[in-house]
Amino acid sequence: MRDVVEIGIGKTAQRGYHLDDIALVPSRRTRDVDDVSTAWQLDAYPFKIPCVAHPSDAVMSPTAAVSLGRLGGLGVLNVEGLWCRYEDPSKQLHRLASLEHESFYSVTRQLQQAYSEPIRPELIADRVKVMRDGGVTVAVRVSPQHTLALAPVILDAGVDILVIQGTLVSAEHVSTNDEPLNLKEFIADLDLPVIVGGCTDYKTALHLMRTGAAGVIVGVGADEWSTTEDVLGIRVPMATAIADAAAARRDYLDETGGRYVHLIADGDLQTSGDIAKALGCGADAVMLGEPLSRSEDAPGAGTWWHSAASHPNLPRGSLRPAQNPLGTLERLLYGPSDNPGGHLNLFGGLRRAMAKCGYRDLKEFQKVGLVLDR
Amino acid sequence: MRDVVEIGIGKTAQRGYHLDDIALVPSRRTRDVDDVSTAWQLDAYPFKIPCVAHPSDAVMSPTAAVSLGRLGGLGVLNVEGLWCRYEDPSKQLHRLASLEHESFYSVTRQLQQAYSEPIRPELIADRVKVMRDGGVTVAVRVSPQHTLALAPVILDAGVDILVIQGTLVSAEHVSTNDEPLNLKEFIADLDLPVIVGGCTDYKTALHLMRTGAAGVIVGVGADEWSTTEDVLGIRVPMATAIADAAAARRDYLDETGGRYVHLIADGDLQTSGDIAKALGCGADAVMLGEPLSRSEDAPGAGTWWHSAASHPNLPRGSLRPAQNPLGTLERLLYGPSDNPGGHLNLFGGLRRAMAKCGYRDLKEFQKVGLVLDR
Amino acid sequence: MRDVVEIGIGKTAQRGYHLDDIALVPSRRTRDVDDVSTAWQLDAYPFKIPCVAHPSDAVMSPTAAVSLGRLGGLGVLNVEGLWCRYEDPSKQLHRLASLEHESFYSVTRQLQQAYSEPIRPELIADRVKVMRDGGVTVAVRVSPQHTLALAPVILDAGVDILVIQGTLVSAEHVSTNDEPLNLKEFIADLDLPVIVGGCTDYKTALHLMRTGAAGVIVGVGADEWSTTEDVLGIRVPMATAIADAAAARRDYLDETGGRYVHLIADGDLQTSGDIAKALGCGADAVMLGEPLSRSEDAPGAGTWWHSAASHPNLPRGSLRPAQNPLGTLERLLYGPSDNPGGHLNLFGGLRRAMAKCGYRDLKEFQKVGLVLDR
Amino acid sequence: MRDVVEIGIGKTAQRGYHLDDIALVPSRRTRDVDDVSTAWQLDAYPFKIPCVAHPSDAVMSPTAAVSLGRLGGLGVLNVEGLWCRYEDPSKQLHRLASLEHESFYSVTRQLQQAYSEPIRPELIADRVKVMRDGGVTVAVRVSPQHTLALAPVILDAGVDILVIQGTLVSAEHVSTNDEPLNLKEFIADLDLPVIVGGCTDYKTALHLMRTGAAGVIVGVGADEWSTTEDVLGIRVPMATAIADAAAARRDYLDETGGRYVHLIADGDLQTSGDIAKALGCGADAVMLGEPLSRSEDAPGAGTWWHSAASHPNLPRGSLRPAQNPLGTLERLLYGPSDNPGGHLNLFGGLRRAMAKCGYRDLKEFQKVGLVLDR
Repeated sequence: MRDVVEIGIGKTAQRGYHLDDIALVPSRRTRDVDDVSTAWQLDAYPFKIPCVAHPSDAVMSPTAAVSLGRLGGLGVLNVEGLWCRYEDPSKQLHRLASLEHESFYSVTRQLQQAYSEPIRPELIADRVKVMRDGGVTVAVRVSPQHTLALAPVILDAGVDILVIQGTLVSAEHVSTNDEPLNLKEFIADLDLPVIVGGCTDYKTALHLMRTGAAGVIVGVGADEWSTTEDVLGIRVPMATAIADAAAARRDYLDETGGRYVHLIADGDLQTSGDIAKALGCGADAVMLGEPLSRSEDAPGAGTWWHSAASHPNLPRGSLRPAQNPLGTLERLLYGPSDNPGGHLNLFGGLRRAMAKCGYRDLKEFQKVGLVLDR
Repeated sequence: MRDVVEIGIGKTAQRGYHLDDIALVPSRRTRDVDDVSTAWQLDAYPFKIPCVAHPSDAVMSPTAAVSLGRLGGLGVLNVEGLWCRYEDPSKQLHRLASLEHESFYSVTRQLQQAYSEPIRPELIADRVKVMRDGGVTVAVRVSPQHTLALAPVILDAGVDILVIQGTLVSAEHVSTNDEPLNLKEFIADLDLPVIVGGCTDYKTALHLMRTGAAGVIVGVGADEWSTTEDVLGIRVPMATAIADAAAARRDYLDETGGRYVHLIADGDLQTSGDIAKALGCGADAVMLGEPLSRSEDAPGAGTWWHSAASHPNLPRGSLRPAQNPLGTLERLLYGPSDNPGGHLNLFGGLRRAMAKCGYRDLKEFQKVGLVLDR
Repeated sequence: MRDVVEIGIGKTAQRGYHLDDIALVPSRRTRDVDDVSTAWQLDAYPFKIPCVAHPSDAVMSPTAAVSLGRLGGLGVLNVEGLWCRYEDPSKQLHRLASLEHESFYSVTRQLQQAYSEPIRPELIADRVKVMRDGGVTVAVRVSPQHTLALAPVILDAGVDILVIQGTLVSAEHVSTNDEPLNLKEFIADLDLPVIVGGCTDYKTALHLMRTGAAGVIVGVGADEWSTTEDVLGIRVPMATAIADAAAARRDYLDETGGRYVHLIADGDLQTSGDIAKALGCGADAVMLGEPLSRSEDAPGAGTWWHSAASHPNLPRGSLRPAQNPLGTLERLLYGPSDNPGGHLNLFGGLRRAMAKCGYRDLKEFQKVGLVLDR
Repeated sequence: MRDVVEIGIGKTAQRGYHLDDIALVPSRRTRDVDDVSTAWQLDAYPFKIPCVAHPSDAVMSPTAAVSLGRLGGLGVLNVEGLWCRYEDPSKQLHRLASLEHESFYSVTRQLQQAYSEPIRPELIADRVKVMRDGGVTVAVRVSPQHTLALAPVILDAGVDILVIQGTLVSAEHVSTNDEPLNLKEFIADLDLPVIVGGCTDYKTALHLMRTGAAGVIVGVGADEWSTTEDVLGIRVPMATAIADAAAARRDYLDETGGRYVHLIADGDLQTSGDIAKALGCGADAVMLGEPLSRSEDAPGAGTWWHSAASHPNLPRGSLRPAQNPLGTLERLLYGPSDNPGGHLNLFGGLRRAMAKCGYRDLKEFQKVGLVLDR
């Protein structure tokens, strides 16, 4: 049973666990690494690896999305990012990439300034065209706040998958000022699969599934450079969040007699070991941001920032100055690796973890044994 | 049920939890940030934000108290601080602000020396007058030891709220030497609201409520520069202390058929995230010391020390050398922020945390879900 | 009930807690600090403070023992230390005190060399004479291995209290080579009180009490410079060890119809806060080593080493290079302090902790409430 | 009962404990250190100490294996290491030993390059001959992948004990490509004792015992320089893994009416204290890698690397640059020590730990009490 702790008289808290708190337990069987499959499919779209890009401008440009798509993952462009604010964002990207370890504040101000330019909807079509022309599955991200305004342009541009993503998204957003986005009605009117999130608990995940979403993002994209907890007091134990959302997926599958909604884990993912743990907790795929920023061809030239880091009055993350690239995107994903830290050959590492634990495919691997040792 | 652990044969300890051990859990609903209210009211006095200043000379002068009051919080001047020991304390404040990272001892000696000057009761009236003239709610702090001696002067000066604060205050102080302060009788004779504390457990909180206090301070003002634990062996897990005091508040409300005593959390509060957690555990307001020292107009010019750091023979804290200011007091409280660490826009951060968790006002927000993940 | 954990199938471990894991909880009452007594009495010998010196040459010389005795504590000289190996050990002490942060090995070799000189029994009488002439209670330490050989000399010299101390001492030492020390018979033949230890669990403590000892040492004198765990795999959670030994004290009191054996905590004691916690867990007194090395008149001139650090083939601790003294021994014990870290005014800090928690004397204070928050 | 935790709805993890989490608890008896035996016997081969070398080229060469054998332990040469890839590997060893704290990647590339040379089976016989001529028990390590191919050469060369070791080995390896090694049939056909592993759980250990192995390796050889967790998400809590495997040993003993399979702990072993803990959890012997690299005559000249660190496309460890030697191998094992950190006199430390805890031999010592205090 779930561990509920009385932290003070009459006040309880549920125990939660981070990916770092757990580890995989090999079973009594091992398997040949060549027999293992990391294939993933969302709706009609097949992928070689369960890898969705985090829509940060540091890792995703139209061409970077194409590269990832060709390598078997899903690129996602942020239609509220620099590529849809500037005709040519390279000057902004270059300036951000050249920032040294200056003070927090100066870096944050430069981020805020770069994103203070208004979104130019006409650029969206151009960017999507580049991705379509690349011959890959096309996905873009929009925030819940701008979904109603930008949806017509996005849909006209012809995307395959729409990602509606905010730090936290609920199926029931209450507002006395604006007409809020009704996710259920909005999704019902579309005929393309929608991924929506982030969320952190069973109930929100279940409600988001009931909106008709094809995928739900679990987590708030936390990493070492994220400050969501300092600013908002919200910290997401990912192992628990994923497992809880997986329970919602099971219950929703039963409730609908067979609709399977995919879970995309977004947070605390740095290494191939982390990816294996997230999938072992029940995720169907992972959303990778910072790990992809270490590729030679990342648009941020080795720099990393989360979208929330550029918020105009409440930034919730900092910019990691440029680091040396570890290799091409292909090598990052598939090796060979000469980096023992788990940052290279991300999906080769996953595949080997599955083999050592004795599993053949991702769905089976969700049942891998876990140990809690911290 | 509360977790009681046998730490050795026949010897038990209750488990306690720190604000750092827990985090907020968003609910299935989100809310527009503009629909959220952070209003707080103590007795007849309304405040825009649940913010009480810690009465350290590093953050509170008569004019600083007026500034905070005008911005919607409650300033508190220490009548045993430098402003009531020196006609013009600016020389002392300047000297303390100019201390570099010298050895602990030298810094502590300088603090001890600055506070070795006797209190001059006649200055109290002058200081209070400045605050009254500022048109804000006037509050001053006195220690339990000096309450009987200084009360006449304080009351004559015309304050709105009296704060009787020591590291630890009980409703039952035993002494064979002096006639100790009988809080119950003392408060009954006053016709202004009294805030009293700190305290750390259910029983002491309940007894302090029964003295007739309008507010009870929970915690001992611990922060990174505090050494209460090293010196006294006392360390207060604030999440538990607040929740336990909130249980006392409920029981006292029932016992009196409706007297609601406010809880003011004092300890482990550095960021907007910490503030949100303290309120989520059941506090009605927070007492902020060090966070306010980072404003441009703090009397300590960026330096911070807790009152206990200047104790003549048993100092229990050190002086944090001056740091660069983060902005005006207004910006500290309301943003905009260019600091991702949660030190700027303290109450904008609170407001957004409430919105993301789906709550409309502070009383509702005390029911926010918590996760325990450390 | 005690928490017993199955760490693997069929293999259990008992949970143990360190002093750092717990903290004192003030009760609903506070007390005037001048009404609090820290008096302690062992057998016929009264002490102003519950302070026994750790018999390391770094803190105890014959004159240092006299100083501590005059200030109300109990000095203990090691008859196997430098003072009983050299006519004048000042050259050795000076050399050890002059060691800088050299490599571990070199320092350890110098310690080993200093202690390679044989013990000269005739010096014991001289050293004891100095202590007797000082007019204080005289105590010396001998190891279990040398007790039979050195006892005649020690007893002839005229000591008041004998301390038989090894890292770990049991009432049942098994040896096929030597005739081992039978503590029970040995103590029965003496007519002076014996303190014996260290020990770490209920059963060993109880058996040591049954030898007729007046006091039992709990712990192995662990501190930051101790490496007992690295070398032997033994680490003592002091809160649990003290509480367990206190249970043995209760059971033995009952079993004998009233013999009260004193517990002297030896380990993890750096600050006044630590002292308060150890007494709050049930100890009657504390054995202080490193904290006393910070006095102006410490024989080690600010250097610290545990006796086990000089073991000829298995050293289990390192030498802390000399640090600046914090003040006279008197100031170290009674203040005033200008050090917020709890290293000065050790027993003034204890007294204030007792007052804040509402207790009048040490025996009562053993019932103070504890919180477990780590 | 085992602690199974629901980390999320419907998803459980078993609690696991590391050697660092526990410590030994002395019993009520102590014993003379000269009465303690550390003797160990595997099949017909007696050893003075329960010490098996980790087959890394950093610590094992043919002559180093002879030295360890003469001192009472079991040397193991890796037939897939540099000694069986190069006629004279000294140039490679020298180059690896001269690497400074360069970047991870460069070091890893040099390791990968050194091991890219093919294995030359004819060298195996030469190397084994040197070991045989040394007059010690001869053991070599081969990976499961190469066992079938290399076994004929190895057996012809005349080894006493065969070690089949991979990061993780199971009794049921599934492959659609190659004919996998059937351990049970393979071992049945041999008439020499086989040690096999690593493994991490009860069931795999039991199945490996059923293959007829004389010894089972528990753990994956993790140490500070290992990155198995980063790359694969697998982290082994050794105290639990050893105790679980010991339960398998008991059950298998019962099932077979008396076949005792030895457990060799491989991981998290740095100091004599760690060795004592591993044996106290139920291991029969320990496999030491990095600790042996600190001897004057280690082939790696003070450098350390785990075999997995040289993997061609997924390295899982880094190379620790050369450190100053601590002494001869004899001194490393038996002292005397002038190193308080537990790195010297490894088995003298074990012997003293056994004496202080009151145990006479290794089998008895497996019952030593444990405390869990982290």
